[in-house]
Amino acid sequence: MRILILGGDGYLGWPTAMHFSAKDHDVHVVDNYMRREMLEEVSSDSLTPILSLPDRVELWRALTGREIGCTLGDLCDFELVQRIFSEFQPEAIVHYGEQPSAPYSMGSHERAVRTQVNNVVNTLNVLYAMRDICPEAHLIKLGTMGEYGTPNIDIEEGFIEITHNGRSDTLPFPKLPHSLYHCSKVHDSTNIHFASRVWGTRATDLNQGVVYGAQTPETLIDERLATRFDYDECFGTALNRFCVQAVIGHPLTVYGSGGQTRGYLNILDTLRCVELAALNPAGEGEYRVFNQFTEQFSIAELAGMVREAAVASGLGEIEVDSCENPRTEKEEHYYNAKHTKLLDLGLEPHLLSSAVIAQIFEVVQRHRDRIAVEAIPPKTRWHQERPEPALV
Amino acid sequence: MRILILGGDGYLGWPTAMHFSAKDHDVHVVDNYMRREMLEEVSSDSLTPILSLPDRVELWRALTGREIGCTLGDLCDFELVQRIFSEFQPEAIVHYGEQPSAPYSMGSHERAVRTQVNNVVNTLNVLYAMRDICPEAHLIKLGTMGEYGTPNIDIEEGFIEITHNGRSDTLPFPKLPHSLYHCSKVHDSTNIHFASRVWGTRATDLNQGVVYGAQTPETLIDERLATRFDYDECFGTALNRFCVQAVIGHPLTVYGSGGQTRGYLNILDTLRCVELAALNPAGEGEYRVFNQFTEQFSIAELAGMVREAAVASGLGEIEVDSCENPRTEKEEHYYNAKHTKLLDLGLEPHLLSSAVIAQIFEVVQRHRDRIAVEAIPPKTRWHQERPEPALV
Repeated sequence: MRILILGGDGYLGWPTAMHFSAKDHDVHVVDNYMRREMLEEVSSDSLTPILSLPDRVELWRALTGREIGCTLGDLCDFELVQRIFSEFQPEAIVHYGEQPSAPYSMGSHERAVRTQVNNVVNTLNVLYAMRDICPEAHLIKLGTMGEYGTPNIDIEEGFIEITHNGRSDTLPFPKLPHSLYHCSKVHDSTNIHFASRVWGTRATDLNQGVVYGAQTPETLIDERLATRFDYDECFGTALNRFCVQAVIGHPLTVYGSGGQTRGYLNILDTLRCVELAALNPAGEGEYRVFNQFTEQFSIAELAGMVREAAVASGLGEIEVDSCENPRTEKEEHYYNAKHTKLLDLGLEPHLLSSAVIAQIFEVVQRHRDRIAVEAIPPKTRWHQERPEPALV
Repeated sequence: MRILILGGDGYLGWPTAMHFSAKDHDVHVVDNYMRREMLEEVSSDSLTPILSLPDRVELWRALTGREIGCTLGDLCDFELVQRIFSEFQPEAIVHYGEQPSAPYSMGSHERAVRTQVNNVVNTLNVLYAMRDICPEAHLIKLGTMGEYGTPNIDIEEGFIEITHNGRSDTLPFPKLPHSLYHCSKVHDSTNIHFASRVWGTRATDLNQGVVYGAQTPETLIDERLATRFDYDECFGTALNRFCVQAVIGHPLTVYGSGGQTRGYLNILDTLRCVELAALNPAGEGEYRVFNQFTEQFSIAELAGMVREAAVASGLGEIEVDSCENPRTEKEEHYYNAKHTKLLDLGLEPHLLSSAVIAQIFEVVQRHRDRIAVEAIPPKTRWHQERPEPALV
């Protein structure tokens, strides 16, 4: 299958490219290094050193004999998108190519606008290129569980049957996004659903939970094939932050009471879920949503698991601290999100355990000299005090 | 009250500005003539001649002695928005300043992107300016009934209580927007709701039906205070198109079977609804949605009413024709949308009648020499045949 991977330089994009290439698919990656530039902008970097994308692709070829095509460029450039689609004629498009950080989007007006314009425009470009150049192709779009927020009812997979005043319809599940980044993903969902209804686009929206794990079978081939590992307050996840804190003996910093509950999954399961979606494409005009995670944890539970793993790994006793929550979010809430559609397609989950966390510790320890401690404490606040009126 | 009117040059913006000014409010209008330029782009123009915005404001002052402030500029320019908010310190912001045409948004990739970027970015700019400069102000945002689409259940006003698996929550009403323009309005709703939840923004989203009517008490003071009247396939409404066709003796062109049912209201009611919203502001952190229309009609019913009014007005017998529907939409569907919140605030509807249609005929007849017949037939199609791959 010809598989185009947008955002192929990213934490998930690069492992996904190797995963499909290893299974003899014809893979082409596109990236504009936006993530790398934004990390520089917030004075952080991946803990794992990573090669340039052309060097990764060349190393992959040298080690495995397999070719991955590569374009460095911006998906907001519609002519570029048209050219890639015309030349590669993808059968599946895996779209990771978006600004992925909630705190980054909340950092300033400029970052909010950049996030929404980048994510909405590049997805519109992809939808138009599909309509005009490869209308039979299947879009596999990375959404996020954060689109749903924390409603007081069970979260279904994309749609919900509503009975109201004696009538029924199956309608898009209502959204309560957590940040302006999450809002941008809701916008994408609205646009993709529209394209399916009106242009017949085949689309799978993977509303993914928080991904953890630093290794895949392909990254283990050679250390230089590693994927990125972000742990800073802006692009890192709480689990990555806790693992770095555990390794350096710093108390684990839980935001607020720690009752915030989310879905989580292993990077190995992300790769398998994307593969299952590609192998079982959506029908013509079908917009389907899979909730892509395997387990739910609260932040306090996650901190507890890292604490236990630290003891088991010989890192010793680590304290768990609470700090003021920089985000506006419910800290105690109902959370029960369905996630059966990928299991029905054959997903066999890799669950979180002390052993899995120990593997992350191991990666962190190997690059311990690269840890920038000052990148960890929260700086970006959701609700700012009123600043002085701007002088313009 | 200090009322900022964004899109103050438009069909509703200018009458709204005069309406508030006539009631002794302090009014400032902003516009960048985007609508005028887009009409030129699609080779059409308002049937009624309209002065420049500064000339309208000056004439209003000369005729009434009342001052309306005026800024010509683009709301996507955040520095401009900050400067206007800092200098005027609005208490209410009436936001009409968006690309308002569904067919325009469906005309090309470029027009789709322009529509979504313009509408999303300028609304984000307004939300940030409110947060930072006048956090107590009240945003009155023009949304559209077209955000809801045509679900098979009753449409509530913005939110719906859902009981699911034994639990309940009141959540945003699911959206099925009709076009990429309507998608942009859904994006705005998502962002504004977020701002209310996180920053405490006071916001009223007026999900408006299709507005008709060419005259208000203020436009009747002098013909040169007229508001625009669009009847072309891109920016005109079906009722305006039918009225122009009736006046020139052309069959009324119904798209498809004509069962498409929507909410409608008189421009006099739009002015009153916006006023009611301004006089009864949303609370801190409240995002409320009013469905702003007074009656529902199918397109076939609307054509029938115009046909009857033509006979009553002495225009004679006009045929009603069906043409191929250029849009992808349900032509027969359930439609029952609630609209009680504005009635509860005191709205007294002006309903559609032969007499009201006759008033529109009169405006059309007065400017009959300006009718561009070629602007009426549908050109923009929702679902295009696959074009040849772009050569890039």
